[in-house]
Amino acid sequence: MSAAGDWVSVFAPATIANVGPGFDCFGISLGEPGDIVRARVVAEPGVKITAIRGDGGALPYEAERNTAGQAALAILAGEGEWAARHGLELEIEKGLPAGSGLGSSAASAVCGAVAAMLAVGHATGSVYNRDRVLFAAVDGEAVASGAWHADNVAPALFGGFTIVQSLDPLNVVRLEPLLPCRVAVVTPDFVVETKRAREALPKSVSMRDAVANCANAASLVAALLTANGPLLRAALADRLAEPHRAKLIPGFAEAKRAAIAAGAYGCSIGGSGPTLFALAPDEDDAERAGEAIVATFARHGLTSRLLVCEISPLGARRI
Amino acid sequence: MSAAGDWVSVFAPATIANVGPGFDCFGISLGEPGDIVRARVVAEPGVKITAIRGDGGALPYEAERNTAGQAALAILAGEGEWAARHGLELEIEKGLPAGSGLGSSAASAVCGAVAAMLAVGHATGSVYNRDRVLFAAVDGEAVASGAWHADNVAPALFGGFTIVQSLDPLNVVRLEPLLPCRVAVVTPDFVVETKRAREALPKSVSMRDAVANCANAASLVAALLTANGPLLRAALADRLAEPHRAKLIPGFAEAKRAAIAAGAYGCSIGGSGPTLFALAPDEDDAERAGEAIVATFARHGLTSRLLVCEISPLGARRI
Repeated sequence: MSAAGDWVSVFAPATIANVGPGFDCFGISLGEPGDIVRARVVAEPGVKITAIRGDGGALPYEAERNTAGQAALAILAGEGEWAARHGLELEIEKGLPAGSGLGSSAASAVCGAVAAMLAVGHATGSVYNRDRVLFAAVDGEAVASGAWHADNVAPALFGGFTIVQSLDPLNVVRLEPLLPCRVAVVTPDFVVETKRAREALPKSVSMRDAVANCANAASLVAALLTANGPLLRAALADRLAEPHRAKLIPGFAEAKRAAIAAGAYGCSIGGSGPTLFALAPDEDDAERAGEAIVATFARHGLTSRLLVCEISPLGARRI
Repeated sequence: MSAAGDWVSVFAPATIANVGPGFDCFGISLGEPGDIVRARVVAEPGVKITAIRGDGGALPYEAERNTAGQAALAILAGEGEWAARHGLELEIEKGLPAGSGLGSSAASAVCGAVAAMLAVGHATGSVYNRDRVLFAAVDGEAVASGAWHADNVAPALFGGFTIVQSLDPLNVVRLEPLLPCRVAVVTPDFVVETKRAREALPKSVSMRDAVANCANAASLVAALLTANGPLLRAALADRLAEPHRAKLIPGFAEAKRAAIAAGAYGCSIGGSGPTLFALAPDEDDAERAGEAIVATFARHGLTSRLLVCEISPLGARRI
């Protein structure tokens, strides 16, 4: 096959989903670290993954079972006749660990979708389409999580703070927080499988808890958009997912208390965990909160890594 | 008794609670119409209601059973020794019908709390305290609704768009929407008792519905604060209370469809109903949406009154 196109390289960042009261709808971009996918058009139909690095050999090369591969397939599915005579070759470079709560599978899916869209666009003249890419990335991410959701995909694609208003129809809004805010992200060295974390959740909740989460989700958005720190402090609480998933993370309650005592607005679980995040007014507070979480994990026999960053305006980008 | 102080007169406006996805937490002020309470310090301890007008004889004069009376008692309860030697006389003028979904009992409670606080403050030098007044008004409103909630009290007191972030501790935030928005308020001529509307609600809800409401509540706030009309259109939906309370209102689904077809962003039930409200981009759309609702009620044999207004920045005020 000689008719291969130019390589397109795309980076997508780590993200934190849920962000307290926004279970399955809120997400924030951490800017970096992240994953990289390279794509180029080839003459063979379908998607062929020819290299995966940084995954310790864990990820499948079969496109349909790989989040980046499936996302690229979803882009090809929109190209009709052209896709019967062309395909994509992908190379994947994982910067994010799987099962950590940093949106690893979403980052790969987003990279795959964006790289595929750009490579296909170069070849066919297709215009880059935000909604098509979003849909393809969500489709790809479902391979890993077993569920159709977009709370990591949205910030990995668009950056900033995102709300998945609806999955069907898929509608995502991206907000630019006004409140100065730093994020401490602590990832302990063990894995929580997304599917297991999802099974830990009940199918129904009390009306009281549902109302409390609605009030907190709305208040958290109001706090970010009107720079209201005390309101963020009050609203960063979750009654839907956190109480059930906390049991999967040794020392969670203690780590949360320690982070808040160290100056954080609040602390909760990143996605399905075991990563914990804390939001704090400034770099020093975030640093102290993060170190308090690391120290708590250490007392529970867990090593962990701390990252302090901001809610990054950056999502997926060509590199 | 000769030592009576000067009369203080306070007005508090009609309000819409819930506002779609914000069951038990969102509220908006309509600015007017509203209730008026006059208060003055008298030598006899306790609260004595000496006149109630505009209620058709329905409201009790016994202070503990009257929302304005109970709110005034709650203010007195904070005055210690002084309240053993002084009391308050109240006159109440109802401008709002009870059981209509316009926050009638909350308006009276807010008037009672504010008028009592001002009258007591004149006599004792007590400084006007926002949180004390809010607490007293919620305490007063509970007399009518049988439950401790603040979704009507908050906008009646503060104006604008309000979120009750938490009831315990009581924490309310007031927002100033950026999105130009008119409100059509249609009140059909029958009564839904708040207690009955509350009994129509289930004690638990599906996780799926809880998540959808959180996403919509957060998105509605984002829409108002970032002037995003299409987002408001998508987010003005409620799965927690509306499906159950709609059954108490003849023609609800049809009226809602008609309002949206006439140009409204969306339409839902004001508080526990039967008032319906629609939010619309401008005066003309609101007018058309309101008339569409009135016409639907008429087809179901109900007369109704239409009010078109804005989300008013005005809450309770001295007159």
